[in-house]
Amino acid sequence: MEKQMRTTLLCTALLALLSANLHAEDAKQPPKRKSAKEIIDAAPASAWRDLDPANTLYMELPTGRVIVELAPGFAPEHVANIKTMARGGFWDGLSIYRSQDNFVVQFGDADGDDKAKAKPFPAGTKQHLPAEFTRSDKGVHFDRLPDVDGWAPQVGFVDGMPAAHDPKTGKSWIAHCYGVLGAGRNNPPDSSIGAELYVVIGQAPRALDHQLTVVGRVVKGMELLSTIPRGPDPMGFYEKPEQRAPIVSIKLASDVPQAQRTPLQLLRTDSQAFIDATEARRNRVDDFYTVPAGHIDLCNVALPVRTPPAK
Amino acid sequence: MEKQMRTTLLCTALLALLSANLHAEDAKQPPKRKSAKEIIDAAPASAWRDLDPANTLYMELPTGRVIVELAPGFAPEHVANIKTMARGGFWDGLSIYRSQDNFVVQFGDADGDDKAKAKPFPAGTKQHLPAEFTRSDKGVHFDRLPDVDGWAPQVGFVDGMPAAHDPKTGKSWIAHCYGVLGAGRNNPPDSSIGAELYVVIGQAPRALDHQLTVVGRVVKGMELLSTIPRGPDPMGFYEKPEQRAPIVSIKLASDVPQAQRTPLQLLRTDSQAFIDATEARRNRVDDFYTVPAGHIDLCNVALPVRTPPAK
Repeated sequence: MEKQMRTTLLCTALLALLSANLHAEDAKQPPKRKSAKEIIDAAPASAWRDLDPANTLYMELPTGRVIVELAPGFAPEHVANIKTMARGGFWDGLSIYRSQDNFVVQFGDADGDDKAKAKPFPAGTKQHLPAEFTRSDKGVHFDRLPDVDGWAPQVGFVDGMPAAHDPKTGKSWIAHCYGVLGAGRNNPPDSSIGAELYVVIGQAPRALDHQLTVVGRVVKGMELLSTIPRGPDPMGFYEKPEQRAPIVSIKLASDVPQAQRTPLQLLRTDSQAFIDATEARRNRVDDFYTVPAGHIDLCNVALPVRTPPAK
Repeated sequence: MEKQMRTTLLCTALLALLSANLHAEDAKQPPKRKSAKEIIDAAPASAWRDLDPANTLYMELPTGRVIVELAPGFAPEHVANIKTMARGGFWDGLSIYRSQDNFVVQFGDADGDDKAKAKPFPAGTKQHLPAEFTRSDKGVHFDRLPDVDGWAPQVGFVDGMPAAHDPKTGKSWIAHCYGVLGAGRNNPPDSSIGAELYVVIGQAPRALDHQLTVVGRVVKGMELLSTIPRGPDPMGFYEKPEQRAPIVSIKLASDVPQAQRTPLQLLRTDSQAFIDATEARRNRVDDFYTVPAGHIDLCNVALPVRTPPAK
């Protein structure tokens, strides 16, 4: 620990020095920069990708639709099981039964642990899956950020997901940023099957990274989850069943009639527009922000989503 | 930038190496550690400090009380002005008029920019204040974390507030963590007087650090602010006045009769219990978490609050 601390201090000092030089140069020649919004608005069509309906969940709440992009590249077994459960209507009529401030909302079958009351899983649902906490980095396209991260050797984006990478172990994993969807589990690492899911609604709980299976992230509708009244329990579970937030249904977008789908596009994380917009946020200089931060945290990087423009 | 990146990579690699050694040692001899909760529950009375009513705001909402500890050490002029405004009932009957998902709620006088409709400031309110973005580190007691931070050379705690420090400039400032209360401003740095305030309700927007005056942080009742329905505007402003969340009143706790106060204690950030609890979270090893993170982010450090035990 001592050695690590000294190295950390040294690194911090070095970075501060270099960063100070950078700032000094900026101060000499204030750059005329486009804002992140201007860059994104001007992005060519090729910078955007369509959200794939076969890889998208619609969570219908009484308040509206939450849209999730799944991450089969990271959690193939969980995602396949989730698709089976969605097709079988597993979550329809179930609830969000936990809302812990600055942490997560959790949903699924609140009575899942009670054999007498638990909702049966749809036919084909696997009752046991391997832990899918990390994936191999072999063949993985990693859009790396240059920014230092305290939790992982490298951070960036894979398949549009905020991700971390350890070149030493050859592993990648999705980072627990705001909006990330993960599979709740009990103590055994392989105790999740994707039936009980959580979404991060607060400061990124990165201590959960590579300790749980992450299955995707919310790309639209986070405000419907983040405003759900918190449970009184220290862990946010509700006292009474009537306090739970009902789920109308969770369906695969590809199983929803075309006319009822929400077409969305996401800015590719390997596009120049994404790189430039992130840099514009990392070193924001405008009439309001006068001191460029010189840094951006993985979980502060905006992942732009839009309605496809009319053809 | 190139140099900075190379240094970052080198540092990251070094840290990964040291961290790997650490983990290997942990794996050999799994330590029998107390959990953060056990450590906090066992903390001696001396590890706790009373929240000072003269330095505490009660924000009364129809849903309950939000409690704020002010930071006069960082923003003496703003805090003094806020006390004047609270005593004069400035916010009573005003509203939370902005709720932007994963960012901030903002409150004050929604009609403040409209001279015809703006609520007059109470007698004694200063109409101009200096920017108080940073303070000198002279004589400041800084409970430093050993953890690397991408935004600042050093991070830790000052006066119970999450804070950053730059030894080169001799400046300290409060970091924009979840629950931090800041003074909204227009483009001129010295355009805030503390009338329009915001609270961070999402991933720490640390790019705001030392660019705005931070005046305190919420120590209880965050869930009342974080669940306020988001405004439809991209910046979270409501379309219609009736959508705003009303504020019953904001008062200094010392102006509230003793019987109506909420006594609270906060764990001192220089106490051994705080240090040990933070370490227990940094390297959590229990039946659920099997891989210690070896790191904690400033804004992930819990700042324990309790009702004082009966004497």
